[in-house]
Amino acid sequence: MTDATGKATRRSGGRAQRLIQRAAKPIVDPCPPGQIGGSYKPLTEVDLARIFKTALKLLSDLGMGEVPDRLRRDLLAAGAQDNGKGRVTFPAPLVEDAIARAAKTFALHGRDDNRSIEVGGNKVYFGTGGAAVQTLDLEDGIYRPSTLADLHNFTRLQDTLANVSWYTRCCVATDVPDNFDLDVNTAYALLRNTTKPTATSFTLAEHIDPIVKMLDIAAGGEGEFSKRPFMKAHISPVISPMRYGEDAVDVVYECIKHNIPMSCITAAQAGATAPATMAGFLAQSLAETLASLVMVHAIKPGFPMVFSNWPLVVDLRTGAFSGGSGESAVLNAASAQLSNWLGLPSGVACSMTDAKAIDAQYGAEKGISSLAAALAGGNLIYESSGMTASLLGASFEAFILDDEMHSHTYRALRGIEVSEENLGFDAINEAVLGPGHFLGGEHTIAAMERDYFYPSVANREEPRTWAENGAKDARTVARERARRILADHHPEYLSSDQDAAIRSQFKIL
Amino acid sequence: MTDATGKATRRSGGRAQRLIQRAAKPIVDPCPPGQIGGSYKPLTEVDLARIFKTALKLLSDLGMGEVPDRLRRDLLAAGAQDNGKGRVTFPAPLVEDAIARAAKTFALHGRDDNRSIEVGGNKVYFGTGGAAVQTLDLEDGIYRPSTLADLHNFTRLQDTLANVSWYTRCCVATDVPDNFDLDVNTAYALLRNTTKPTATSFTLAEHIDPIVKMLDIAAGGEGEFSKRPFMKAHISPVISPMRYGEDAVDVVYECIKHNIPMSCITAAQAGATAPATMAGFLAQSLAETLASLVMVHAIKPGFPMVFSNWPLVVDLRTGAFSGGSGESAVLNAASAQLSNWLGLPSGVACSMTDAKAIDAQYGAEKGISSLAAALAGGNLIYESSGMTASLLGASFEAFILDDEMHSHTYRALRGIEVSEENLGFDAINEAVLGPGHFLGGEHTIAAMERDYFYPSVANREEPRTWAENGAKDARTVARERARRILADHHPEYLSSDQDAAIRSQFKIL
Repeated sequence: MTDATGKATRRSGGRAQRLIQRAAKPIVDPCPPGQIGGSYKPLTEVDLARIFKTALKLLSDLGMGEVPDRLRRDLLAAGAQDNGKGRVTFPAPLVEDAIARAAKTFALHGRDDNRSIEVGGNKVYFGTGGAAVQTLDLEDGIYRPSTLADLHNFTRLQDTLANVSWYTRCCVATDVPDNFDLDVNTAYALLRNTTKPTATSFTLAEHIDPIVKMLDIAAGGEGEFSKRPFMKAHISPVISPMRYGEDAVDVVYECIKHNIPMSCITAAQAGATAPATMAGFLAQSLAETLASLVMVHAIKPGFPMVFSNWPLVVDLRTGAFSGGSGESAVLNAASAQLSNWLGLPSGVACSMTDAKAIDAQYGAEKGISSLAAALAGGNLIYESSGMTASLLGASFEAFILDDEMHSHTYRALRGIEVSEENLGFDAINEAVLGPGHFLGGEHTIAAMERDYFYPSVANREEPRTWAENGAKDARTVARERARRILADHHPEYLSSDQDAAIRSQFKIL
Repeated sequence: MTDATGKATRRSGGRAQRLIQRAAKPIVDPCPPGQIGGSYKPLTEVDLARIFKTALKLLSDLGMGEVPDRLRRDLLAAGAQDNGKGRVTFPAPLVEDAIARAAKTFALHGRDDNRSIEVGGNKVYFGTGGAAVQTLDLEDGIYRPSTLADLHNFTRLQDTLANVSWYTRCCVATDVPDNFDLDVNTAYALLRNTTKPTATSFTLAEHIDPIVKMLDIAAGGEGEFSKRPFMKAHISPVISPMRYGEDAVDVVYECIKHNIPMSCITAAQAGATAPATMAGFLAQSLAETLASLVMVHAIKPGFPMVFSNWPLVVDLRTGAFSGGSGESAVLNAASAQLSNWLGLPSGVACSMTDAKAIDAQYGAEKGISSLAAALAGGNLIYESSGMTASLLGASFEAFILDDEMHSHTYRALRGIEVSEENLGFDAINEAVLGPGHFLGGEHTIAAMERDYFYPSVANREEPRTWAENGAKDARTVARERARRILADHHPEYLSSDQDAAIRSQFKIL
């Protein structure tokens, strides 16, 4: 509202004051997780259909190798065929039936139900998925082997970050040599330090039963975890190209038995375990992820599985995996589009970087792949927080910076609401014929609070002020914040009784 | 090709050797400038139509204020109306006629014709557009006022960078106090140091005639420049909200007289000079850029004008312009989509950042806005190289880093070619039934050379190797490269005769 003369009114001072007060504490998050993606379509309808058709042909003609006996029996019972040359093939109707009956949306429960999310449709959530073996030390700034203490620290750090919507252990505790101890202590670190939806990996199927007993303690009693599972499993049942991995398939059976939702992840590498041509890559990796889906379908139709088709790229010069590139961005976006087009809950990877330093390379590679995957509608976007060094590294500063970057991405994803009110024909007339600007008006302030995200790590000062305030770069600011959070945030999400019960039954390190 | 047994053949060693040799020098650029955008559509068809309709209504009902007399006469002659209250209104048919007769595609000539580009359609080109007043000093790493020497150095640096497709002077020589001297010496710096398409700003219309005489000397004789203009003008003829700026309009007349193509730039700021609601912002800024187009149409129908509708955002907390945000990303993407939808050559801004340091904030903000603007199909993407500090700063390291980032963006933009050959059904069968991998095959190497971009600044080493090699961050690597280029690249794009002729007629500082 402006006064009739178009002059600044006396109320301006009060408005400016309110403006500053409100800005200090935004009333609402303008861009929370779960924004809707899909406005970026790297593939045409014809492309999608051709890739899908090729994937179906690969499954029906070439099929899958190294099928474990138990799975072979279940697949054949579901309609698959043994080709007599060591491979099991999937007729197209079997694959299409698996797609039709797949769980299209399902909950990832947090122990705190306010933190639960729904997977599927076009909703986009960033989360973690790493298995870094090195940690960028917060104190001395060098990479060193990741430890169990790191895992506890990363877990409680991310517990405060709104844009990690589910938390998979981001690093491997390399100081825990025994595999069973590792799986147990990884699960314990998650239970103790967060009530978000969680995820982990199980090295062997026989680890699952005892770990579910631990999860039951946290859930309040025997059998309680399976009623409302708050931990999902990351599994790679398919080894590219086009064969199953026996240990992982065993884990799948055990997860289904305990009602543990699964992210079945295909992690083919272009030019190494899949074609270097991107279309061929997508066809093969789609076939492989469909092979995981058919497996689940053959064991328990409709069991919750995130269709996690992650295209990975290797650098021709070294043969090593590279995560920060335009190729990774467009391939993961295309994968998300393909999965969503099939109606399946899509899982892709982004915010990957090959940078070791927390630098401009880090930011650009993460920004590009994050926006691409999100705009394409990836439902669960793994690896998107805290990871560095081609997924070999995890960093506390990175968690802080990625959290803020995701808000920008969600803000872009939210898009532009075109309504009569927002088009503001009358408001423009008033401003033009009145004061000649839009500053300080109630409508302006309301819109800027409702629609704009205000970063707290990123620096928006002018160069002189920035220099006077110490010329800090983003990593320095993030490091200071990470240290504050780690000093202050010590959640105890297990009661002392629960903790004692777990410690009496398990070797908690 | 794999041998029948699926074993590694003796030729593998030779292949690996070729692989390394070829990788050292890619045969073709897999993602040159001019990639096709448009696969990201932030606005629906209904949204586009509503925003356009509101813009038409703003022009027909509210119209433009402060119309200079000469322009008023030309507009009224073209069908505009004087509303008797100091504003000139544009009936919808006039606006639609201006759009219909606008130049849809046209050349931006380089003095070297191999460097010319065509503006329009869905081709995407990154270039500069800044007017930084501070330079991040390459030696001591602090911001200081930009100088004419900086301008010469930036110009010859970018001359070596393939992804600056046209070069607008990126900084203002603040050590040249006189406006005429400034315009003359800016044009001279461009002439001397690059043969790409160039652009500049003219402070006053009367500067143009003498500067064209200088351009004629470089072009080979009187009148030669106008036959094939290799410099365009950046002009903001509209002052938001909804009025013309007299000096800039005078520049427009003079540019048209000398056949200088124009980027008519609307640089409204959301919440300050335009609505904070994004839909309203887009409606007003579209109306304003259309007012520039109608102006050009009234003076000379179809004269080349880049429809440069740059949405800018202010931070509510300070009122200062902020360039690095999800809001900026989606607004510039939407602006590109709108312009392309109208069939007009679109100009938007991206790769903007509020960071002062060359850090993770810098990278993430640039990555997000660059990908958004490019995927949406912005034809000329201004401000996309070398700019920092909310467009207040320019940086040599930034030019190097942005150039490489744009290759990733172009690579993503290039998309995925889905053909029978690329789908590779037979190749997948061969690999699966043969060696079990795709490494080292001729098809793999051919695809990786043809389809993959290999960065030379970004670090892809593993953490240990990176540490052993000095643990350099991206800024350090970019700084080293910038220094090398500045030491080595001293183009002399004016002959000694041309240079002498210019120096005899102009005060070259």
